Amino acid sequence: MEKTYRIAVMGGTGPQGKGLGYRFAKHGHTVVLGSRAAEKATAAADEVNARLSSPTVAGAANADACAEADVVLIAVPYDGHDELVAALPLAGRTVISCVNPLAFDQQGPHGRVIDSGEGSAAETAQRLAPEATVVGAFHHVSAKNLWSDEEYLDHEDVLVCGDSAEGKAVAIELARCVTGRDGIDAGKLRLARQLEPLTAVLISINKAYKTQSGIRISGV
Amino acid sequence: MEKTYRIAVMGGTGPQGKGLGYRFAKHGHTVVLGSRAAEKATAAADEVNARLSSPTVAGAANADACAEADVVLIAVPYDGHDELVAALPLAGRTVISCVNPLAFDQQGPHGRVIDSGEGSAAETAQRLAPEATVVGAFHHVSAKNLWSDEEYLDHEDVLVCGDSAEGKAVAIELARCVTGRDGIDAGKLRLARQLEPLTAVLISINKAYKTQSGIRISGV
Repeated sequence: MEKTYRIAVMGGTGPQGKGLGYRFAKHGHTVVLGSRAAEKATAAADEVNARLSSPTVAGAANADACAEADVVLIAVPYDGHDELVAALPLAGRTVISCVNPLAFDQQGPHGRVIDSGEGSAAETAQRLAPEATVVGAFHHVSAKNLWSDEEYLDHEDVLVCGDSAEGKAVAIELARCVTGRDGIDAGKLRLARQLEPLTAVLISINKAYKTQSGIRISGV
Repeated sequence: MEKTYRIAVMGGTGPQGKGLGYRFAKHGHTVVLGSRAAEKATAAADEVNARLSSPTVAGAANADACAEADVVLIAVPYDGHDELVAALPLAGRTVISCVNPLAFDQQGPHGRVIDSGEGSAAETAQRLAPEATVVGAFHHVSAKNLWSDEEYLDHEDVLVCGDSAEGKAVAIELARCVTGRDGIDAGKLRLARQLEPLTAVLISINKAYKTQSGIRISGV
């Protein structure tokens, strides 16, 4: 039915990367978890494989993980993001950024200001890798829910932004592995400025209500 | 059961202000729609009253509408917002801002950058009216749905941000008139930086899917 992608997850040892890698692999995609240190990546791959009926996930150093990939998921913390992206072989690939540039202080979480409010992690990635097709998606799905036994996070939606219809189509399709239905086309790549820091709102809600909140779009 | 508020709606002739005023009045609150010109406000009040079994809504010039209010809803376009807010008698009142500072160009809608990314309309209102209690809420409810015959917009959530628990409690309670349930405490006032431009995403989705989209928070 659906296309099988070779997906490299940058930051594959973190909760968001590992959880998304798990969901993609469970649905038949070929997943390589990347990390700075190959052995850490391999350990995370072992953790994911232990949950799969067919243990196909590999681990590798970030750049090596990219080498064979059609799709590269950027799931790294924002600190060090730019240097990592600049060093990766991303040309010709679909790059999905779920990076959330957040800051925390006594008042709680809030969005980090990028390029004086005129930028986002996804836009930075596109600028650093001009021959890649960058989209933003999967910012808001709860890492805890991703790693849970729930068949689908069907109470959440994956919002996808990008300037390439083809790039967005990949993320919209991959969302099915997570929510059980297509991701939502949320508009142009620059709307990552709005999507990325929205995670600060969800974290605030999680704290106030002691829950794992998610975004659902009504009317679609 | 619930407290009855005297609510003044700044920008009460616009679709968001008129729609919210209609919903509040329908649930027994005393509503005055404000506008720059009193006669325009009165005409909008007539429109709302025509839909109510008990026609109690009045119209007045913005500052006059505030005079008797417990709660002032700011529902004006962002252009001219600061001048209006600075001129209103807001001290001691609960001020709910649903202002969405957006810009539009060939690529569609996006958030306007306020204070180099470190501000929002709601925070500006609080700074201009330091003796008011400002909260942000009702940014995302569709004006078309507000004006519809739907009993409640029960597929949408009202996200409320603010630095005062009492102020947030008012908006959380008033949300019941709109969605049929409490608004969601979304955190501190500065998270208005995230909530306000999120409307650009909803407008993009509306265009792509020819719908009236809304936000629902899952897990709460």
